[in-house]
Amino acid sequence: MRLRHKPWAEEYIAQHQDIVVPNPEDYKGKWAEVFGNQNPLHIEVGTGKGQFVLGMAQQNPHINYIGIELFDSVIVKAVEKIIAADQPANLRLLKVNGAELLKYFNKGDVDRVYLNFSDPWPKTRHAKRRLTHEGFLKLYEEVLVDNGEIHFKTDNRGLFEFSLVSMNHYGMRLNYVSLDLHAEMPEDNVMTEYEQKFSAKGQPIYRLESQFIK
Amino acid sequence: MRLRHKPWAEEYIAQHQDIVVPNPEDYKGKWAEVFGNQNPLHIEVGTGKGQFVLGMAQQNPHINYIGIELFDSVIVKAVEKIIAADQPANLRLLKVNGAELLKYFNKGDVDRVYLNFSDPWPKTRHAKRRLTHEGFLKLYEEVLVDNGEIHFKTDNRGLFEFSLVSMNHYGMRLNYVSLDLHAEMPEDNVMTEYEQKFSAKGQPIYRLESQFIK
Repeated sequence: MRLRHKPWAEEYIAQHQDIVVPNPEDYKGKWAEVFGNQNPLHIEVGTGKGQFVLGMAQQNPHINYIGIELFDSVIVKAVEKIIAADQPANLRLLKVNGAELLKYFNKGDVDRVYLNFSDPWPKTRHAKRRLTHEGFLKLYEEVLVDNGEIHFKTDNRGLFEFSLVSMNHYGMRLNYVSLDLHAEMPEDNVMTEYEQKFSAKGQPIYRLESQFIK
Repeated sequence: MRLRHKPWAEEYIAQHQDIVVPNPEDYKGKWAEVFGNQNPLHIEVGTGKGQFVLGMAQQNPHINYIGIELFDSVIVKAVEKIIAADQPANLRLLKVNGAELLKYFNKGDVDRVYLNFSDPWPKTRHAKRRLTHEGFLKLYEEVLVDNGEIHFKTDNRGLFEFSLVSMNHYGMRLNYVSLDLHAEMPEDNVMTEYEQKFSAKGQPIYRLESQFIK
């Protein structure tokens, strides 16, 4: 998405430390301290404006959620939404780089990874930047519980084709594939901002669930 | 497809034994005798009216092709097409049941299996009849060379979703996935009758290549 320069964003984020966790490296291996309970932790890498992770947190109060987003100008939108929704106690954001998950999570800290409408990086020379590239899969495996799952949605055909092959080559088990999610809209589907926009245009939304095999 | 009763079909097939191999069980392990050479053998299971396997045989004279089709009334259409195309020497048909491959092929007889627009059998209780069900994958593996490939095309979303999961669970390697074959139309794509019809309506054609891993 287009990033506008927002000089006030940094200050706004610093004012909401109850939502955007400061010094997240301090909680590596002890996220239960942040949430005050031992509930499962699901993270979304590339959380954008936060509609998905907020909707999930509201729908599933017994799961803890962390949305990870690097860009100030985007994460402030998520903070605004979370405040408007009375700040569910089971939701936090990290303003960090998804490529540095190992700084913030130990093996087994995370019970599930969500990827939604990730940047497709369509050029072959940028394939390593795709969030379903082998390099990222390895990262997720290193923070997930054994047999941990990835749930992935996108409207981008090329990225979905790449992801099916990449996860298969990595040795992951595919548990679910939909090539037109909205044709069979599951009742509990929480839509992202992108998903609303693209599905309204009649484009198919692709979705998969996959699992690392211990 | 709708099957019309064609009482003359059986006789017509018997008159073209140079195309529809009689007593194919006699050639198990020795298909090179039929073709008069040691070229690789690719088979299509469910060959229908034959446009695909005929086009492939014409395009690839150094590969032998066998189209397998159970129904008299359909296979006669394929015979007619093959005669009209001057009977390529590298093409034969078998009027047999695809579920009985082991009667006609030894392990290693087949170098590649093609599946095109197979019956989707959409009801869950019929899942075992889908040509990409585990039971059929096992059959293909038992007649293919080590690391042999399946190339599969369909317009049926449910069948393609099922097949991705089924092949992944079987431990097959996915080498290629397209969720809209005609958006990137490979130059060497040979269309089936169904493919022409459905793609003309703007429906996406799905395609994959997968491989058994020895």
